[in-house]
Amino acid sequence: MSYAAPVKSMQYLLRHAVNIDQLYGYESHSDLSDDLVGDILIGASEFAASVLAPTNWPGDQSGSRLEDDKVFTAPGFRQAYKDYVEAGWQGIAMSEEAGGMGLPQLVATATNESFYAANMAFGLCPMLTASAMKAIEAHASEALKRIYIPKMVTGEWSGAMNLTEPQAGSDLGPVRTKASDNGDGTYAISGQKIFITWGDHDCADNIVHLVLARLPDAPEGSKGISLFLCPKRFVNDDGSLGDMNKVKCIGLEHKLGIHGSPTCVMEFDGATGWLIGEPNRGLACMFTMMNEARLFVGVQGVAIGERAYQAALAYARERVQGRTIGEQDTIIGHPDMRRMLMDMKAKLMGARAICMATAIASDIAAGHSDEKSAKAAHARDALLTPIAKAYGSDIGVEVSSTGVQVHGGMGFVEETGAAQHYRDSRIAAIYEGTNGIQAIDLVGRKLRRDGGQAMAALMADLTDIHAAAKAAQAGLKGDDADLLESCTAALEQGLSSLSEATEIILSADEAGALSGATPYLRLCGEVIGGALLVKSVVGGLAANDPLAGNMLKLTHYHTLAIMGQSRNHVAFLRQSANAVMGFPERDLADL
Amino acid sequence: MSYAAPVKSMQYLLRHAVNIDQLYGYESHSDLSDDLVGDILIGASEFAASVLAPTNWPGDQSGSRLEDDKVFTAPGFRQAYKDYVEAGWQGIAMSEEAGGMGLPQLVATATNESFYAANMAFGLCPMLTASAMKAIEAHASEALKRIYIPKMVTGEWSGAMNLTEPQAGSDLGPVRTKASDNGDGTYAISGQKIFITWGDHDCADNIVHLVLARLPDAPEGSKGISLFLCPKRFVNDDGSLGDMNKVKCIGLEHKLGIHGSPTCVMEFDGATGWLIGEPNRGLACMFTMMNEARLFVGVQGVAIGERAYQAALAYARERVQGRTIGEQDTIIGHPDMRRMLMDMKAKLMGARAICMATAIASDIAAGHSDEKSAKAAHARDALLTPIAKAYGSDIGVEVSSTGVQVHGGMGFVEETGAAQHYRDSRIAAIYEGTNGIQAIDLVGRKLRRDGGQAMAALMADLTDIHAAAKAAQAGLKGDDADLLESCTAALEQGLSSLSEATEIILSADEAGALSGATPYLRLCGEVIGGALLVKSVVGGLAANDPLAGNMLKLTHYHTLAIMGQSRNHVAFLRQSANAVMGFPERDLADL
Repeated sequence: MSYAAPVKSMQYLLRHAVNIDQLYGYESHSDLSDDLVGDILIGASEFAASVLAPTNWPGDQSGSRLEDDKVFTAPGFRQAYKDYVEAGWQGIAMSEEAGGMGLPQLVATATNESFYAANMAFGLCPMLTASAMKAIEAHASEALKRIYIPKMVTGEWSGAMNLTEPQAGSDLGPVRTKASDNGDGTYAISGQKIFITWGDHDCADNIVHLVLARLPDAPEGSKGISLFLCPKRFVNDDGSLGDMNKVKCIGLEHKLGIHGSPTCVMEFDGATGWLIGEPNRGLACMFTMMNEARLFVGVQGVAIGERAYQAALAYARERVQGRTIGEQDTIIGHPDMRRMLMDMKAKLMGARAICMATAIASDIAAGHSDEKSAKAAHARDALLTPIAKAYGSDIGVEVSSTGVQVHGGMGFVEETGAAQHYRDSRIAAIYEGTNGIQAIDLVGRKLRRDGGQAMAALMADLTDIHAAAKAAQAGLKGDDADLLESCTAALEQGLSSLSEATEIILSADEAGALSGATPYLRLCGEVIGGALLVKSVVGGLAANDPLAGNMLKLTHYHTLAIMGQSRNHVAFLRQSANAVMGFPERDLADL
Repeated sequence: MSYAAPVKSMQYLLRHAVNIDQLYGYESHSDLSDDLVGDILIGASEFAASVLAPTNWPGDQSGSRLEDDKVFTAPGFRQAYKDYVEAGWQGIAMSEEAGGMGLPQLVATATNESFYAANMAFGLCPMLTASAMKAIEAHASEALKRIYIPKMVTGEWSGAMNLTEPQAGSDLGPVRTKASDNGDGTYAISGQKIFITWGDHDCADNIVHLVLARLPDAPEGSKGISLFLCPKRFVNDDGSLGDMNKVKCIGLEHKLGIHGSPTCVMEFDGATGWLIGEPNRGLACMFTMMNEARLFVGVQGVAIGERAYQAALAYARERVQGRTIGEQDTIIGHPDMRRMLMDMKAKLMGARAICMATAIASDIAAGHSDEKSAKAAHARDALLTPIAKAYGSDIGVEVSSTGVQVHGGMGFVEETGAAQHYRDSRIAAIYEGTNGIQAIDLVGRKLRRDGGQAMAALMADLTDIHAAAKAAQAGLKGDDADLLESCTAALEQGLSSLSEATEIILSADEAGALSGATPYLRLCGEVIGGALLVKSVVGGLAANDPLAGNMLKLTHYHTLAIMGQSRNHVAFLRQSANAVMGFPERDLADL
């Protein structure tokens, strides 16, 4: 069950699907180049393959265990984490002033894909640390930043997000955990949190908990929630670690997958915390990191899917069974096997391009010197984030399911490893906001609230891609011309579906928009992914990139089989409210 | 995690989607009536709910264990099996002469759905016993029948299929297990079989193994394989059990799901066996039972999906989270939740109708007095079987995945039970011939071999459904008229997609047909399922069936969201060979 990151296709997409070179002109990234990015991706791939990948299966089999309020991770995790810290990967996207590498989020998207693919359960810990750092950097006092950021940027201390309570999940309004003012600038936090990923463990020296809690005089609901920082261990003035805080893990969940990642029930029993940001503004602070985490969860879907693809390809090349019609004797010579592999790869490539487009939008928003461009990029980032999260994680589930199928009976036997990907991938569609929540976010906050402006700007870009593809067609001959023509025709139809669907959602009533939210998000994923691949083909061909020919073939498959599905959704959206809400709820058990 | 069979909708489909009453005129079913069928379905549902369902979760958690070559099933399984035998369910579809109840396969499809839903791992044992009985009845000597059938029809003895070997799975040609003539009418069987479901266990007094093996002078490949019956224990002349045969379980697989079902590595070490059917004709004999088993695997997909639906519905009605826009305060008031539930139910209902249409075709083939009608029904059964198996099991996986999603974070926690359905359902797409094999069977043996005749006959029936729906539309008013009009328009498009796709597959070369086989099968499932639901609406409305109004609403959803997907596949099929096989195999690892 070896793994190597698809560095070549990552670089191809970075160049031709999202034009990474536009970041090279930024002051903060002036030393960046294709070569340097290539070296970083190769480094990440090698680290992922040699250090993280070998811990994946043992992590699944052993899981974590809770003993005397302490969580012990699976064999090999402590050493892998130590190696991760030493290699300096934790600070990849943090600014150099903060002690990080100062690389764009876009590059982190690619390196993190390697780490998640190698061991998704492990990768969650650095992901949460990075998100927690972002929130602390954006909202905490200078004093808190000085204490915590330097140790988090190295990974010596990890971060954990304490949001969920039994009655407060997708909706955090009913959070009950209490914070009372100690009168000395600190607060006493009391309450129970569930589903806390890496809430306790034995890999890092300290754990920095960000906790949502309610001040005594806080308004009800989501407008009365504040954010606090509660370290597992206090930090002395000289930076050394002091006493234990009153926070502990009192239970571990028994889960379908990501067994290597401890999912904790955390008890805060008068734990000392520091307020982050303004009182009662905790949810807003939380969303700072949530957005980033959502992108990375989409990347997880792609990552697990990629690993499932590699395992399926290896099996298909090795297993002999039946009379094939291809050139090969192994089952890869069966067209249906080839179809499954093409389907996996095409879905992955489309979703990967979307994740990259999201990441570069956040980089442009953060770094562009022109305020208007930065603002537009911010809107693009906000628009694409729910799509990257939900579409990326959905195709992760689908691709890993196909991976099981390629293995036949062996795929159902745990030791083969295909089943672990199927189990692991399933959580990405749920956490950091279920994919239903993403769809509601997309049609509500991201589309209808701005009257469709951000989507119109995106549509304009996609229309440019179509025009460029049309123009490129003229310069091609033979098979390539035919393939690109097919892609262009499919893209035209895809764009018309997206445009029509957007109009429907914009003009729908609330029930119609919400009933159609998930199919609309899916349509966005299919069309935007397909369009970005077409863009990469046009750019790749123009640059004589050696991968362009195969990318054209893959894009041909995508535009037919994946993007081609978009046209269905429109017919559904026209009648979504009636189709969904017309059936009487009380009778749902009667059929 | 309670369960109750959807008896009302089963009866609705029996009446209006497949017209069960056409069987009531048969001599063999002359005592059958809607009321009797209803009583049987209720009896099966009650048995499933009270006896089998409580063993599902313990079976998943404990699995089976192997000790001293003996397999011990999970706690509760022995008693449940004893109760199953006592209730007489095993012989439901066996003839009365053979000691069975003599009911149509169609009724068994509905009762078995209840049993599989309650405990799929358990239900596999009776399923394999039934299939083995069919093969013995069709091909074994009278002497063997006299010894084995009476004990199998009660379930006192179970059956097991020993086909797979490490090098012989989807393709049984390379089977290596040997049979040598003992010169006394028996054979000595030696070899190892893997993936043998319920190959050993402690529930039945004896296990009747059907084993594929190769005689010394047999031709190579699939034309040199014979079928043998090897009992676990010999049977004395007086019918009592004698010594142990030389067959034992030497390993159990560690699987993704159906943990309650022991998946055995079986060793035949000179075991005594009896030839069934002609030498070297074993595969043909095996296919007798395989076809029936394939239908029932499709039913398993529907069954697990139904149970996942019921669990999801119960959770959605209980969990409070966020501001809803429906009348309810619980999450079922969120349109996206309703959409997920509608999607689950619509997929289930379409697939259930296909399974029933397959079953009744086999009943007509077996019982129709007119030879031509019987032959046409046999062709219909053969055509629909791969669709029932693959489409039923595929939607089983999808529906149970949606079931996890409805539960949110709780769905990923094993104790909730949603995850078990997700794990269990996955095998149905693999065993009894992977769904890829089903697709190849459909486009090859069932479509292209007869030049599309069986499909043309089916298309004619579906076209009649469309005409009847058009006619029924005229008699309706208001919302119902609008809904049926939408269904009819969607069906027209679906039928045109099916017709066009069929033409493409018929005129394609081998690579094109095989590259498009799976999308074609999917299209068949979507359109045939939708058409059968439309048929049931027309029939239900005409009969003033109280469920018809809600079935119309569900069918509206199906024709838009499920059947509506069919149009995409056609565009793909037109270019399938190029889209799938055009990408150079050697470069599949390079992107």
